[in-house]
This record gives sequence, structure tokens and C-alpha cells, in this order.
Amino acid sequence: MDSLKQKIKEKGEQVRALKAQKADQNLVDSEIAALQELKKQLASVTGEDNSNKSKSKFTLKVPKGTRDYNEKEMAIREKVFSTIISVFKRHGAVTIDTPVFELKEILAGKYGEDSKLIYDLEDQGGEKCSLRYDLTVPFARFLAMNASQYQNIKRYQIAKVYRRDQPAMTKGRMREFYQCDFDIAGSYDPMVPDSEVIKIMCECLTELDIGNFTIKLNHRKILDGIFEVCGVPEANIRPISSAVDKLDKSPWEDVRNEMINDKGLDPIIADRIGEYVKLKGSKELLERLFQDQELCANANAKAGLNDMVLLFKYLEIFEVMDKISFDLSLARGLDYYTGIIYEAITELSGPPTLEDGTKIVRKFKKDTDEFDETTVGVGSIAAGGRYDNLVGMFASSKKGNIPCVGISIGVERVFSILLQKYYKLEQVKANEVEVYVMAVADGLLEDRMKICAELWNAGIKAEFMYKAKPKLQPQFSVCDRYQIPFAVIIGKDELNIGQVRIKDMRSKEQGEGGGSSVKRSDMITELKRRLEKI
Amino acid sequence: MDSLKQKIKEKGEQVRALKAQKADQNLVDSEIAALQELKKQLASVTGEDNSNKSKSKFTLKVPKGTRDYNEKEMAIREKVFSTIISVFKRHGAVTIDTPVFELKEILAGKYGEDSKLIYDLEDQGGEKCSLRYDLTVPFARFLAMNASQYQNIKRYQIAKVYRRDQPAMTKGRMREFYQCDFDIAGSYDPMVPDSEVIKIMCECLTELDIGNFTIKLNHRKILDGIFEVCGVPEANIRPISSAVDKLDKSPWEDVRNEMINDKGLDPIIADRIGEYVKLKGSKELLERLFQDQELCANANAKAGLNDMVLLFKYLEIFEVMDKISFDLSLARGLDYYTGIIYEAITELSGPPTLEDGTKIVRKFKKDTDEFDETTVGVGSIAAGGRYDNLVGMFASSKKGNIPCVGISIGVERVFSILLQKYYKLEQVKANEVEVYVMAVADGLLEDRMKICAELWNAGIKAEFMYKAKPKLQPQFSVCDRYQIPFAVIIGKDELNIGQVRIKDMRSKEQGEGGGSSVKRSDMITELKRRLEKI
Repeated sequence: MDSLKQKIKEKGEQVRALKAQKADQNLVDSEIAALQELKKQLASVTGEDNSNKSKSKFTLKVPKGTRDYNEKEMAIREKVFSTIISVFKRHGAVTIDTPVFELKEILAGKYGEDSKLIYDLEDQGGEKCSLRYDLTVPFARFLAMNASQYQNIKRYQIAKVYRRDQPAMTKGRMREFYQCDFDIAGSYDPMVPDSEVIKIMCECLTELDIGNFTIKLNHRKILDGIFEVCGVPEANIRPISSAVDKLDKSPWEDVRNEMINDKGLDPIIADRIGEYVKLKGSKELLERLFQDQELCANANAKAGLNDMVLLFKYLEIFEVMDKISFDLSLARGLDYYTGIIYEAITELSGPPTLEDGTKIVRKFKKDTDEFDETTVGVGSIAAGGRYDNLVGMFASSKKGNIPCVGISIGVERVFSILLQKYYKLEQVKANEVEVYVMAVADGLLEDRMKICAELWNAGIKAEFMYKAKPKLQPQFSVCDRYQIPFAVIIGKDELNIGQVRIKDMRSKEQGEGGGSSVKRSDMITELKRRLEKI
Repeated sequence: MDSLKQKIKEKGEQVRALKAQKADQNLVDSEIAALQELKKQLASVTGEDNSNKSKSKFTLKVPKGTRDYNEKEMAIREKVFSTIISVFKRHGAVTIDTPVFELKEILAGKYGEDSKLIYDLEDQGGEKCSLRYDLTVPFARFLAMNASQYQNIKRYQIAKVYRRDQPAMTKGRMREFYQCDFDIAGSYDPMVPDSEVIKIMCECLTELDIGNFTIKLNHRKILDGIFEVCGVPEANIRPISSAVDKLDKSPWEDVRNEMINDKGLDPIIADRIGEYVKLKGSKELLERLFQDQELCANANAKAGLNDMVLLFKYLEIFEVMDKISFDLSLARGLDYYTGIIYEAITELSGPPTLEDGTKIVRKFKKDTDEFDETTVGVGSIAAGGRYDNLVGMFASSKKGNIPCVGISIGVERVFSILLQKYYKLEQVKANEVEVYVMAVADGLLEDRMKICAELWNAGIKAEFMYKAKPKLQPQFSVCDRYQIPFAVIIGKDELNIGQVRIKDMRSKEQGEGGGSSVKRSDMITELKRRLEKI
């Protein structure tokens, strides 16, 4: 943050100096824009929101927990999307789209305790609708509605979902956010699609280049088996599972209290659970659990453990076992999982750590209900699991059920990690213009328009200045600001003898001169030749 | 429609024959899927919705006016988007993103009579929000919020918008639909960006290949001038303009009645308006209006006419004048336009025509409030105009205003035209898999997985069957169904001597044999070589 403040100071001095020198207005404007970009970054780091300070008649802001993306942020986001989509397509996925809102009853009863976070549309006559909370339930609804055509499908969907949750914007925890989902639907031999989904998760996170990651892995049946073996009454299993799910954010003591005080669990049972859920490891943990005779006598646990043997074998073939942490504390909040569950975390997922290694406890900002974002981590960046009965909840017959397994990548969180780790927003190039058409004198607006039209018709990305008589320097400044590689420069005399000049704007030679004259009729060919070499 | 019924009959017979022959189940399944696709198409043509007929505990449907897109529809949609985006980028546009809902007060007072169509979110505590009605108002809000950084920008945005309107689904008139917006914001010399926006509109519609189109063009100032000259009281100008806007759907008599009976206009004034709004043409109409001394004495009209002179000159340079119809009946419903307005139509835009040339009048389905879709046209497929004061409505000072001009392309309508004109959905290839990895016997699941992982790691799109011991024929069927060009075929003996077989699945040779043996270590190189040639 201090280096950002330093940069702002330097940039401010630069702008003042340019103004004092009466430098070209376009240059000054561009430097001011850079300064404001830096200030905005600082505001987003310090959590200050300047957008509300203007004295307009409107509250000039976006709804809480939502945000705009400017063109540079979009350039990064599109890169993230295209990386993910290329992985999905490499594994044979197709894409579908569903509406942003669903009938309210479609979403009801799918999300357990989190259902309170669903956004409803106002009843303006007609059907009662809610904004989608994830892409999984709409996908299940789609499959059930089209079961005659889709007994199996590998599909991805990238779209926004909505949760009335407490936002932590700089950490990518928002009320409106993109999910990138990939799911394999269909009845197959056990753990084969499951292992491919985890392989896909690894490919995505590796290619997104967000640094080291770990995939926490567990199995709902093992977890349910543990709860049963420990003596949790059946009706209390999902609520207790929800409590365990909080172990990544809260210490065991808090979770234990919730189990006992809020959910009425016997403390002895809670402590037995505590012994299990602290276990994590790899294949050796699996072997250890197989030696737990009480656990292995439980049908659920046994089935889960057998699945894990198969899964680990396949993950070894796919060479991703080094990413896996078999973690009995992983429970996942959603009700609909029935088999393996997983969650990818990075070093930035947890709450920040002090220098002595103690974890910072999540805090609220003074006198508000909003998190102090410096105390919050990014959270898991991808998660998912097997859900074998969700489609069946929508189907009219048992035959209509289709087992599924999938992942969801939280691109907003990936985005926030990339911004923290790699990108300097001000250096991101958003504009793809290849050629700027400019005049040395006399304006020549109509000639510039005509040449631009020729370039467009030839598929070349081109712009000109929307001014009848622009000066030369502002035209050059545009090329600099947007890093446009080539200029076509026209003058009256040259046009009269059927010539234009092409100038490589990346070369250091500045000013009016330079560039090479070409015949107007050769202009397109020459530009294409040069553009190919970039 | 009859040819579709015929196809369904034939396909049905084919399926029955295959079943009778006890053909391979995958082949039967694939034929059944094709049959159901045809039936679905018929249902969408006849307006029947089968999705509601299942006897599930849920109403298994999407909300009224919304729809799912399956993978083949998505393949077409993505092609449409990429065509449009490439045009936008060719003209130097960048993209931004805004939330799907805005604060309710941001949208208030921007849409005139259409404001009643805005979707509100339920008040669940916190801010009052509405789903965006278009992308223009959020863009203006974005500019006003970030005015210090954006005194000018060429931006595009492709996103869904929401209107509680009467849907006509097969015509692409929906409650949730995509808009593709392109706008140029900034203070420039008159009509230069305006002409580029119209050029862009022409490039998009030409490259989308939707057949002939016409751009109806008018100017709000000319229209306001006409209303003033005819004697419309100032307070009544926008309501009367709204009435004129209905002339593309309703005959003059109906519009006249609305003006007189609903909006209290003097019949003499209405008739004077009627004389003007029936005029359409090209440059010669402009010349004719310049000879109308009363009109030219009106400041608004004069300013508009002068703009048109300049615009027509630039449109001639851009060689798009042949697409333009200067049409005084074009008014556009939205309140915020201040300069030129335009709307692109195709032969499918208007209501259907009977054989004798009479237009079918828009009707409701019996006993419902829904349109009979056979009586409804697609409507305009792109539209826009200049809006110089909208950003200012959000800005705190006059300096905060930024003039804008833009277009919005209704891709849903483009999509419906493409489906009617060109595409047979069943032939669209959605899946991009390049190589299918299969075993001739013994299953060899783990070997197939290992080879697939090698292919994925080399960036090759590959799949295998999720079955421990699949038969050969179903594996071949998958290649056929998804038109997968190559298979890697493995057998125990070949693997033992370090070989695999590569088979070109597009060649006619069928069955187990065929293909060429390559060393396992050369497999990737050989596949890449062959894939390059496709």
C-alpha cells in the first residue's frame, strides 16, 4: 500500500510539472487518467469508496456487493475465461445457457441453511421467481426437463449467480459473481468421471497460474458414516455437517459450541466427531481408516472408503495425487452432495497471518455489519462434488434421475488473486486497434474516413480522430496511449500523387517525419504484411 | 412445417426398424435423440410447449418469457457473438461489465411509458434494486460515476436485459434477452461518430448474413420540430412521439385515435402530423423538407436537417447510403434520445403477409393474453440513436455530462432469423473433441485414461468411454454421433510392443480394422500432424 502511495505522489508531481510546462493537453489528460487509476486502486485497497461522494441528485453507486468491471479488468477476465473454456473443451464439454431467474419453487429446499441468501423478484403479477443461487440446480432442472434427450452430457456454463451474503469485495466475495461450472451427467462406472473432474480442476488452476494450490477432498458417505458411528441422530446429520463445514473459518471450539448449544448435540458425541475431523493426509489416512473396525462396519463409511481407493488409483494415473489432501473436516455446506466433495484452496484462501504465524480472526468494520477486508481470506477458489439425487428431485419417475459430478470455479476470487500477484492494471492493454489513420495538415477528414473504411473492409482494426481539423500531436498521443502499432499518415500532396505513408509507431523516431511512402493501392497489402509480423 | 412432420414420420419409422433389428443401443439412442430434436422443433413452430406435461411434483418449466439454450443453439449463438465482437473490435471498441441489477432510482424516469415493464427485486432489507432494462442507462451511470477517467470511450457490452413484456418466443421477443451494445461517448465534431455507428450497424448485419436489411433513420429534432410546427403543446410532445412510434405495428387510424382520444390532441393537429409522418425516402426527401419554409423556420427542425446533410455525406463516404431509409414515422419509444435515431429491419421484421399482400394483424391466442406468434413479426433487429443528456442526468455538474451515440443489436431476433433461414439444428456440431481413445478388447480402462491424460497435456481435445469394459461398437458410435475425426485404438498386444493405432474416423472403412500403427512415443506428433490438416 505504501508503494502505491509513493507512486501516486510521483505521478501527481509529474502531472503538475506537465501542466507547468503547458504540455500537450492529450498527454496531460492521459497522465491524469493514470493518476486517477492509481487513486482508485488505493481506495479499493483501503476499502474507501469515493463513488458516493459526488453531490448528484442520485446515489451514484452500484448495489452493495456488486461492481463494474472496466475495460482493463475485462481484458484480464476474458483471458481467465478463455483459459478455463479451453480446458473444458479439451475434455469434450459443450455449453448450455439457462435464465438468470428460475421459478422460486425450483430453488426451494436445495441449499439447506443458505436458502436465506436467495434473492427473490418482487411479485408484480405472474410467477414467483428467484435469481439463481448457483448453476447446479438450474442444470439439474434442465436435465430433468429434457431427460429424453440428455441421459448424459458433459457441459460447462459460465454465468453470474446471486447471493445475499456479506460481501468482501477486494477478496472476490461478492453478491453478484461469475461461476464457471463443469459437470458430467450420466450413469458410468464408479469414480471414472469423478477422477476426470478433479483432473480438470487441476488443469484449470495450473493454467490460470495462480500459484500453488491444494485440493481438499472428502466423501459425504464417509462423513455420514463418521456421524453415525459417533452417535449423531439421523435428523441432526445435515445440521451437524453444516457446523463441521465452518472449520475452515472457525476454530474447533466454536464449531463444538455450535453443535452443543445451537444444535443440541451431546458433548461426548461432539468430542468423538472432533477426533475424526482433525484428520487429514493422503493414501496413508485411507489405510488408517480401513483399520478402524467400527467405521468399516458402517455401510456408508465402507462404501465411501471403497470409492476413495478407486479414486486415488485413477488420480495417480492422471498424475494429480500430489495436489490432493484427504481432509475429514471438509463437509461443504450444500445439501445436495452424495459422494466425493472437494474444494481448492491457495495460500491466499485462508485469513491473513501475522508475522508470528497466528491467524487473524475475521472482524467487522467499526459500527457496521461489513467485514474488515484485511481480516478476510479469499476462500476456496473452486469446489464441487458428486450429486446423484438432485436431478431426481425434479423428475417424475425414478428413471428420470441422472447422477452427476462437477466443479464450480470462483473466477472472481481467481481474478482477485491475479490482481494481487501479477497484474498492474495500468499496463493492461484493452484496445486492439492496429492502425491509426491521421492527417499531417488540412484535416482531410473525408479522406481519413475513406481510408478507414477501406481498412475496415479489409478486416484491419482501425481508428481515426473524430475531428474535422485535428492537430498532429494529439493524433500521435492517441497511438502512444493505446499502444497502436501502426499509423497511416496522409497529406494533400501525397494523396494527389496516390501515395500514403505508413509509420511504425513502436519505433523511437518521433514527430511528423519518418515512415515509408507506399502507393495507396498497395496500402492494405503492406499493412497486412507488417501486421502479420507482430 | 409439413416437411418437418414428414421428417418426424420418417425418423420414427427408422427408430422402429432399428429396434426391430435389435440394433446397437447407442445407435438407437442417437436416432431417438434426433427424433426428439425434430419433435421439439415442431413444438416450437406450432407454439406448443411440452415441457409442462410431465407429472412431476414441481412445475417443471422456466419462467414465462425466458428459455434455455441447448448446446447446438449455443454453438450458433457463440458464432453470432464472435461475428459481432470482431466488428466492434475492428472499430477500436473495448468492453466493460455492469451488474445485472441497479439501484431502482437509477432506472427511474429513463424509459417513459415503458417503465412499467421494469422487473423489481423483492425488498429483503437493504437497497431497492431493479433488473436492468437495457445496457444504455447502466453505461451512462458508469460514465457519470467515472467521469474523471472517461471523457470518451468506445465500448461494447454484450449482456442480458429484462422486460416484463408480452413474449413471442419463436420471434425472439422475450422477457430475458441478450443485447449487444456499442456506444461512442465523447464530445466530437458533429455526425462523425454518428456515421461510424451506422457503418458498424451495417457491417454487423452484413456479416451476420441475415439477408437484406434496411436502416430506418430519423432525427428527434426534426420530429420535435414537426410536432411544434403542427401545434402540439410542449408537454404533449413525448406522449405524441410515443404514439407515432407505434406506426410500424399499427395503421395510422389507430395511432390517430390514440392521439385524439387518449392524449387529447386536436384532430386538426393530428392530421397535420399525419401528413409528415407518412413521408419516407432518401436525400430527395431531405431536399424537399428544406423547401418547407415553415419547418425550416423552426430552430429544432433546422438543426436536425443540417445534421442530416452532414450525416448523409459521411454515409456516402462509408458507402452505406443504399441501406438507409429516411423515415419520418420513426420515433423510437425511449425518452432519452436527442439526435438521430435508427432502427434496422428485415423482411421478417414486420407481421407476416398473406398471399395477396395484405398484412396480418397481430392477434392474441384464444382465451389468453399471449400473442398468436404466427401473427407477429420479429420486429427491429438493431436500433439506437444519439443521447446527449443521459449521462448528465447522473452527473453532479454540467461538466459531468458526456454526449453519446450508439446501437443495440437484438441477437435473440437475429438468432431466430438464422434458425428460420439457414440452420438445421440437428446438423450443428457443438462438441469439439478431436480424438477418441478406445480399446479393442479387455477394457484397458487405465491405459485409456493414461493415453487421454497424455493427449490433454499436449493440448489435444480427447475423450474416452467411462466404462471399465466397453464393447467396441458403442465406442465407434460415439465417434459417429459427435463427428469425432480421429480414434486412438489400443489393444493389449500392441501396447506390449509399444504401439497404438490411429484411425481416421471420417473415412468410410468401418469395423475393428483399419488405421495405421504408430509408436506410442510418436502418437502425439502424428496426431498433431493430422489435426493440422483438418
